[in-house]
Amino acid sequence: MDERVREHAEVLVDWSARVEAGDDVVVSVGPDAHELAVAVAEKLGERGANLLATYSSGEITRAYLQAHDDAFDENPAHELALVENADVYLSLGGGRNTSATADVPGERRRAYTEARSEIRETRLGTRWVSTVQPTRSLAQQANMAYEEYRDFAYDAILRDWESLADEMAQLKDLLDAGSEVRLVSSDTDLTMSIEGRTAVNSAASVAYDSHNLPSGEVFTAPYATEGEVTFDVPMTIRGESVRNVRLAFEDGAVVDYDAEQGGDVIGDVLETDDGARRLGELGIGMNRGIDRYTDNILFDEKMGDTVHLALGRAYDACLPDGEPGNDSAVHVDLITDVDEDSRLEIDGEVVQRNGVFRFEDGFDA
Amino acid sequence: MDERVREHAEVLVDWSARVEAGDDVVVSVGPDAHELAVAVAEKLGERGANLLATYSSGEITRAYLQAHDDAFDENPAHELALVENADVYLSLGGGRNTSATADVPGERRRAYTEARSEIRETRLGTRWVSTVQPTRSLAQQANMAYEEYRDFAYDAILRDWESLADEMAQLKDLLDAGSEVRLVSSDTDLTMSIEGRTAVNSAASVAYDSHNLPSGEVFTAPYATEGEVTFDVPMTIRGESVRNVRLAFEDGAVVDYDAEQGGDVIGDVLETDDGARRLGELGIGMNRGIDRYTDNILFDEKMGDTVHLALGRAYDACLPDGEPGNDSAVHVDLITDVDEDSRLEIDGEVVQRNGVFRFEDGFDA
Repeated sequence: MDERVREHAEVLVDWSARVEAGDDVVVSVGPDAHELAVAVAEKLGERGANLLATYSSGEITRAYLQAHDDAFDENPAHELALVENADVYLSLGGGRNTSATADVPGERRRAYTEARSEIRETRLGTRWVSTVQPTRSLAQQANMAYEEYRDFAYDAILRDWESLADEMAQLKDLLDAGSEVRLVSSDTDLTMSIEGRTAVNSAASVAYDSHNLPSGEVFTAPYATEGEVTFDVPMTIRGESVRNVRLAFEDGAVVDYDAEQGGDVIGDVLETDDGARRLGELGIGMNRGIDRYTDNILFDEKMGDTVHLALGRAYDACLPDGEPGNDSAVHVDLITDVDEDSRLEIDGEVVQRNGVFRFEDGFDA
Repeated sequence: MDERVREHAEVLVDWSARVEAGDDVVVSVGPDAHELAVAVAEKLGERGANLLATYSSGEITRAYLQAHDDAFDENPAHELALVENADVYLSLGGGRNTSATADVPGERRRAYTEARSEIRETRLGTRWVSTVQPTRSLAQQANMAYEEYRDFAYDAILRDWESLADEMAQLKDLLDAGSEVRLVSSDTDLTMSIEGRTAVNSAASVAYDSHNLPSGEVFTAPYATEGEVTFDVPMTIRGESVRNVRLAFEDGAVVDYDAEQGGDVIGDVLETDDGARRLGELGIGMNRGIDRYTDNILFDEKMGDTVHLALGRAYDACLPDGEPGNDSAVHVDLITDVDEDSRLEIDGEVVQRNGVFRFEDGFDA
């Protein structure tokens, strides 16, 4: 076994999920995530935690959904009971085809998702962490050779998370103290209110309200968005290529949009519900182990020198206690590169210019 | 997909487990049982049942057990809750190495098994069925080519179960009406009481108290065993080859044993507890789709022209209500060939001679 698989498992179990003796842990294993699952099992055994492995396969989901009708039982008792009794939920992604469920009708998929909302919410109440084993399928999605992709993925995953958390805390403090954010670059001039909102220092650990490995971003829940923004990082959304999406906001909501490619998908997203026309997230990528786009949101949105905005649902951790943020059935991230001709301002003060933060060497106010 | 995989899934879901709309189904998937799992998912979708897939891997179990100490938490709540809320539990075996857990110390394994007894008992209270996807690893265990092994396995699995059930009912009736069974062949002359016990017509369906696919045996729970028996079908028990085991019984218990090979393993089994020295099962194989030994008990014990006896635990279905049968932590099957120089008598009347039953053509009383 590649020693990095063991290190990945150790970071996941100890740093990310803070597993302790006696924890009841569900490990969701993708068909090509077997090796990582073995390494995670070893760590869970060492820690004295209790392991139950589930199997998460796009091909199984597709076969089931294609054969089922549109009426699903609500929150089946066996699965709900499993997550209700889990302390930790580790999702080890890794399939053989990122398009495995491409031909499942959207309506079927939505009906299935809606019928399982309580299971999903309960799972989000555990110490959950999502990660992936670098697979051939993900390498292909990234247009990379397998060995090259593994190097890329482990560079992103095996960071010094404690030190990155300290670095990111500086940006979190600036955002928490601020009221208004302005993002300016070519084709972009957008302002958002963040007054009263709390930024998350997403350091790939539940101890930081952060549930992705890799992570490495600071995010908050903006509102009252005004202006225009162009997202120049290419990505696949719902199986379709999306390029250079432009959104125009007035009074917090999208009033106009277009795209060089994939405009239909963006239109579909915006039509979902009222919340889908408003922002749920402003995220600022700070993981410099991620040095290229790989068409995988788990990695792309954390990349250094990028900013992303999500249409749809806001994360509770950013909101004052009991206050509902933007609500929606979707959360769709779009990413823009900020390494050139760009600046991010908080209350009129530049905090990042051309990718360099004010607390870093080489910052030019 | 081989059409036989779909047929296998259909037999499993409809005939074996009697799955209906609304059933909460756990499907335990081995690492190489993916294809069967996809076919089962399709059937469960068609029936409107609710699917949760778990992942059962010897390598994961080994990694976990090797890293853990000998003190396991009793019946972890998340796994117990899962099986408590399951209506159906389908185990799709199929690994990559039948010796995947060979180096786990026996004591560790026993401690793990003991700590999970309530989970196991609860699972046995569901409509559970164990089957396997024919894998390269099982082909190797059988000393067969992969394609050849698939043909063998599907011949055993894709029977006309309804008609086999009718055939087996004739033997069940003979056993249920009888008091004493005598098995005679070269090196074997054994008598057992079956008075008051009920035979199971094991037709690969929960509707027949039968939980294996393939099945195709009639079994009961004998006691008061006297005499000697030689088991000439070679098999692997706990990773060791066992050949020509001979057991001598007095007053229902083993008083002497030897073996051409694997005597140590038999000794270990007999030492487990008091019940391990007594029989828990007399089984008569009636699946003529199984035409050779493949060193896999799921198949071997169902083979036509064989009889097996198990040391250890008896099945509840054979016992009068509320009466405890032979109890033990083990249930170890041993098999003898009865196709030559053999006869099976019930209360002095020959019911099978040289493999042919009295209700079959060619029977020679």
